[in-house]
Amino acid sequence: MNALWLENNKISLRDIPQPHKQNEALVKIRKAGICSTDLELVKGYYPYTGILGHEFVGEVISSPLSEGEGLGVKVGERVVGEINVVCNKCEQCLNGRPTHCEHRTVLGIINRDGTFAEFTNLPIANLHHVPDSVPDEMAVFTEPFAAALEIQQQIQINPTDRVLLIGAGRLGQLIAQTLALTGCDLRVVARHKHQQHLLKARGIGIISEEEIKPWRWDIVVEATGAPSGFSLARQAIRPRGTLVLKSTYKGEMNVNFSSVVVDEINIIGSRCGPFEPALRLMESKQVDPTVLIANEFKLKDALKAFEHAAEPGVLKVLLEP
Amino acid sequence: MNALWLENNKISLRDIPQPHKQNEALVKIRKAGICSTDLELVKGYYPYTGILGHEFVGEVISSPLSEGEGLGVKVGERVVGEINVVCNKCEQCLNGRPTHCEHRTVLGIINRDGTFAEFTNLPIANLHHVPDSVPDEMAVFTEPFAAALEIQQQIQINPTDRVLLIGAGRLGQLIAQTLALTGCDLRVVARHKHQQHLLKARGIGIISEEEIKPWRWDIVVEATGAPSGFSLARQAIRPRGTLVLKSTYKGEMNVNFSSVVVDEINIIGSRCGPFEPALRLMESKQVDPTVLIANEFKLKDALKAFEHAAEPGVLKVLLEP
Repeated sequence: MNALWLENNKISLRDIPQPHKQNEALVKIRKAGICSTDLELVKGYYPYTGILGHEFVGEVISSPLSEGEGLGVKVGERVVGEINVVCNKCEQCLNGRPTHCEHRTVLGIINRDGTFAEFTNLPIANLHHVPDSVPDEMAVFTEPFAAALEIQQQIQINPTDRVLLIGAGRLGQLIAQTLALTGCDLRVVARHKHQQHLLKARGIGIISEEEIKPWRWDIVVEATGAPSGFSLARQAIRPRGTLVLKSTYKGEMNVNFSSVVVDEINIIGSRCGPFEPALRLMESKQVDPTVLIANEFKLKDALKAFEHAAEPGVLKVLLEP
Repeated sequence: MNALWLENNKISLRDIPQPHKQNEALVKIRKAGICSTDLELVKGYYPYTGILGHEFVGEVISSPLSEGEGLGVKVGERVVGEINVVCNKCEQCLNGRPTHCEHRTVLGIINRDGTFAEFTNLPIANLHHVPDSVPDEMAVFTEPFAAALEIQQQIQINPTDRVLLIGAGRLGQLIAQTLALTGCDLRVVARHKHQQHLLKARGIGIISEEEIKPWRWDIVVEATGAPSGFSLARQAIRPRGTLVLKSTYKGEMNVNFSSVVVDEINIIGSRCGPFEPALRLMESKQVDPTVLIANEFKLKDALKAFEHAAEPGVLKVLLEP
């Protein structure tokens, strides 16, 4: 099958044998999305060799379960899939933290071929049925929407909270949409005009860096992954406020932790989130990720797609086998 | 009156006019404690000029309230005092965060003469009555005990939690005593033999750095203020665990925040805490800080007392006017 292969910081299209893990479902990819993590993997921020890609919507071609067995999805169903494949035996799994499984493989990220291909394998337990009313170009956003919802899974956001979101890129836009649902007083720092327009179209307030009053925000979500974003977040947060880190940072950062102690700041890292609520919100049209789609490419044009996705301000680029 | 004055990183005994703020109580100091913050102020970590000292027990000599007025403490009562003097008008005060008052002065730390003196001034609202059954040498620990209890004020500690405390100095010992009350599975990293003995005497488990399994602790409390302590804490904490920073750090620290995001770690700074629970725990003898007392000096020997307090492993040194 055709697949986009990453090796030594280089991506190339290759003809790879179709995956065939007997104890996992075989999924035919319908659409896949390029995420910032994919771009970072190509830059070599994390070591990975294999088929890239972890955002997808697909169709179950074969299942390890026989007819009528189990509660999982069935052959022919349209599905999305959780990216962490877990052992169910380690301390993290046994304590209700499967996304932190100590032996996990991660779709297109850690020791597991990803979704920029014609087919992929995933355990049945990782797959979620996509409601008929959620089209492919929406369902393909389930994984990043789930990541956005992880914030509400970790911390309580009160409707009265003043919330600052720094960054309105691929993930930032989805976070903005889900945060807005809480009724909180949300303002978003968006660098690009197009990002600002998308937010305004949903009635979400934007704010310039200069307008941000320091020491006044109950919750700050940092979604730029840049030290300057972290620094802005640190200035904005009020004493005893919560600073959510939603992006990874290259290398180490210099941080004044004395002020974190004196101001009793809560800093919390946030990664993968729950799929079902993401699907529910799309099904009920509370959120609409399709406005993020910048372009769609055929898998055979994946190199061009990656170039496009790396341009500043470009939001979601989709791939179709 | 006699007082220990700090100016340009130098402490000296001086004859200072007795304080006389008309709208505050005048308190005669009975005992005062030397804290690590005092030693750091002398080192010049924070700029401060004035009388040092913020831990004390004293007696109310005069009050701005007339007889029968208000609910505060009365002349002649034995008291301890909260160190943050607040405006009651700023956003922090009006939102229930008075210890973060934006216009606060802090006893012996920020723009307010402290307690290494014969007398000090504090607003009536800052003072707490000391029960008769709590002797001076116990009551003088109320402020640091309150700081220890701030942890339980900020986060939930489950009796089933595995809790690692790094550091068993002045504050660490008090944190160990209060954490042990939760029934949690507590282990303490204590560098000095004497620190270890005090913990063992209370049935609190100690652990060597080598024995600490990485990625296994639900809660880690860092009370050393050293980058090595932070680094150890970061290794020990489990995914989605909570890392409490209980000490300030000199300058900035290099931290890998990507791993904080990937492991979804919660880092929370912790400072001043509630006085009444500290007094209750001492009154009911649930805790006993007096075992920490290394030595007691007269105020006139304060320079000698500071030298002693700065020696490695020395716990609490008290001063008496």
